[in-house]
Amino acid sequence: MTDNAFEKSSITLLGLGAMGAAFARTWLAAGHPLTVWNRTPARAEPLVAEGAKLAGTAAEAVAASDLVAVCLLDDASVGEALADADLTGKDLVNLTTGTPAQGRARAEWAEGRGARFLDGGIMAVPPMIGVPDSGAYVFYSGSRALFDARQGELAVPAGTVYVGEDPGYAALHDVALLSAMTGMFSGVAHAFALVRGEKDVSPKEFAPLLVGWLTAMAPYVYGVADHLESGDYTRGVTSNLAMMVQANGTLLRTAEDQGVGTELLTPFMGLMERRLADGHGDEGVTGVIDLLAR
Amino acid sequence: MTDNAFEKSSITLLGLGAMGAAFARTWLAAGHPLTVWNRTPARAEPLVAEGAKLAGTAAEAVAASDLVAVCLLDDASVGEALADADLTGKDLVNLTTGTPAQGRARAEWAEGRGARFLDGGIMAVPPMIGVPDSGAYVFYSGSRALFDARQGELAVPAGTVYVGEDPGYAALHDVALLSAMTGMFSGVAHAFALVRGEKDVSPKEFAPLLVGWLTAMAPYVYGVADHLESGDYTRGVTSNLAMMVQANGTLLRTAEDQGVGTELLTPFMGLMERRLADGHGDEGVTGVIDLLAR
Ligand SMILES: NC(=O)c1ccc[n+]([C@@H]2O[C@H](COP(=O)([O-])OP(=O)(O)OC[C@H]3O[C@@H](n4cnc5c(N)ncnc54)[C@H](OP(=O)(O)O)[C@@H]3O)[C@@H](O)[C@H]2O)c1
Ligand SMILES: NC(=O)c1ccc[n+]([C@@H]2O[C@H](COP(=O)([O-])OP(=O)(O)OC[C@H]3O[C@@H](n4cnc5c(N)ncnc54)[C@H](OP(=O)(O)O)[C@@H]3O)[C@@H](O)[C@H]2O)c1
Repeated sequence: MTDNAFEKSSITLLGLGAMGAAFARTWLAAGHPLTVWNRTPARAEPLVAEGAKLAGTAAEAVAASDLVAVCLLDDASVGEALADADLTGKDLVNLTTGTPAQGRARAEWAEGRGARFLDGGIMAVPPMIGVPDSGAYVFYSGSRALFDARQGELAVPAGTVYVGEDPGYAALHDVALLSAMTGMFSGVAHAFALVRGEKDVSPKEFAPLLVGWLTAMAPYVYGVADHLESGDYTRGVTSNLAMMVQANGTLLRTAEDQGVGTELLTPFMGLMERRLADGHGDEGVTGVIDLLAR
Repeated sequence: MTDNAFEKSSITLLGLGAMGAAFARTWLAAGHPLTVWNRTPARAEPLVAEGAKLAGTAAEAVAASDLVAVCLLDDASVGEALADADLTGKDLVNLTTGTPAQGRARAEWAEGRGARFLDGGIMAVPPMIGVPDSGAYVFYSGSRALFDARQGELAVPAGTVYVGEDPGYAALHDVALLSAMTGMFSGVAHAFALVRGEKDVSPKEFAPLLVGWLTAMAPYVYGVADHLESGDYTRGVTSNLAMMVQANGTLLRTAEDQGVGTELLTPFMGLMERRLADGHGDEGVTGVIDLLAR
């Protein structure tokens, strides 16, 4: 055994936005030789000070390492950045948010150019990256061989969850969770808008109540999953749809009284009403999913 | 001191739906003599078997105790049920979900009839009631004297959080949290709809990922509160609005590809785009609240 066996593999990273920079930092801190590229090179300065090598072009950056990670704004920027790069023999890991279809097309494109390909969906905000026990992880799908070979490098910035050979599956899981978060954030915005005009309710006092409530109610998801698996949407229901639709009226009137727009709540409430009108007042809200999905 | 000092006070409860029955059960189990009334008397049977006294009319039930709790469908049913009751000298605690305006009007109405009045907003589902450490609690507002005098009884089924003399404040807090939950549930419905057609993603495997993600992201609320308090919506932002709006396009295209309606996501995304168009791409999503509220 030579010293070489203990040397860390080199990694190339394209994209030094908030998320790319967080990945770069943890790989550097773990001792991986790191080559970076960013469209706006000035953004690389702090990382160069920490030991990263800045490449002049994306193609040069790609040439520097066998493992190439990409964290850019969207799939179009990935295509642009990699247009002139030689991907032969590379392990390409795409950490850019995209659709399942983009993940599949990007896999075909990369494989056609001689690379193994893994698509990733990052379930974290940048401050969670590289922080043990932060709960940060990345969904991966595509080449299982790449995933197994690169576990060591991939596990440095965040946990890894492999969701299948279908290269669209990381994006599907990612987008599903981001969509749920978007709903939660829209509810949060509405809630803050409701209390905003009240001088006796400060956002800082209200925030822990809101976090506690959302956290306490999130496990309702398990009931929905049970309904979908069993096909029986009344199982274990303790908040029935008829009562909830009645409460919806209270929510809307309160918004109007407080001078807050109701547009964030009404589409979901409309689906609840449709389900109730179809005779399902003794269910919970699972039936709304039937009205949304194919 | 006589034995009498150790006797539990008697309580009257109107309304034995899922929530009322849960309250009734915990008061009974704690040894409080309990008189109940329900529009449909058959629903009282199991509680009578556990020791509750069933009154023939709401007025008779009210006459039986100094402390009268009401948990009916909505404010209109409260008015109907109490129409003929003599409230003189009663402590009336309304656990029915209503608007702040209804809470204030009901307080005036009750006080005009000689009662002290406390409005409540229950932050729990029925299975959490009476379960220590379940996190269940009730927002109360209105008569502080009633709240202080009846702490012993009120604390039996759930925690108590007094939010002010303004009898509308319990409802305001309640409705704000329920509105946020409605947003979260709408996001959850959309997420399940996205993965539903995929034979390799089961609801039961997907559920813990979703719960974990929503729980991990809920503390974003603290950042929003900090923005609202400071007036600086860029403070500590690591997921900028420009990037999020770009990701929204990915979310919408994925929904279309999966055959899922986008109506639950588009209203919030529209507000994010308006805020971005106003030149706030370096903020998080707090600015949406400015577009919603007076
Ligand atoms: N931040 C988060 O909370 C978070 C969480 C999960 C996933 N993500 C995903 O991570 C990816 C990066 O997000 P971020 O937060 O790092 O965004 P960001 O801070 O806005 O950075 C965007 C990056 O993309 C580059 N870029 C944009 N258009 C480009 C183009 N046409 N060609 C080449 N480079 C281009 C930017 O280069 P310049 O410096 O030259 O502008 C920058 O490096 C996104 O797909 C995002 O959805 C982010
Ligand atoms: N369940 C929950 O998860 C939950 C959580 C927080 C707050 N709450 C609130 O608690 C209250 C009760 O909810 P619940 O879940 O117990 O609902 P529920 O199971 O549907 O019961 C509704 C109750 O209201 C009575 N009622 C309806 N209309 C009436 C009228 N016009 N006159 C007299 N009584 C009438 C019903 O009597 P009958 O038996 O004769 O129909 C029944 O006792 C609601 O305000 C709800 O918003 C519920």
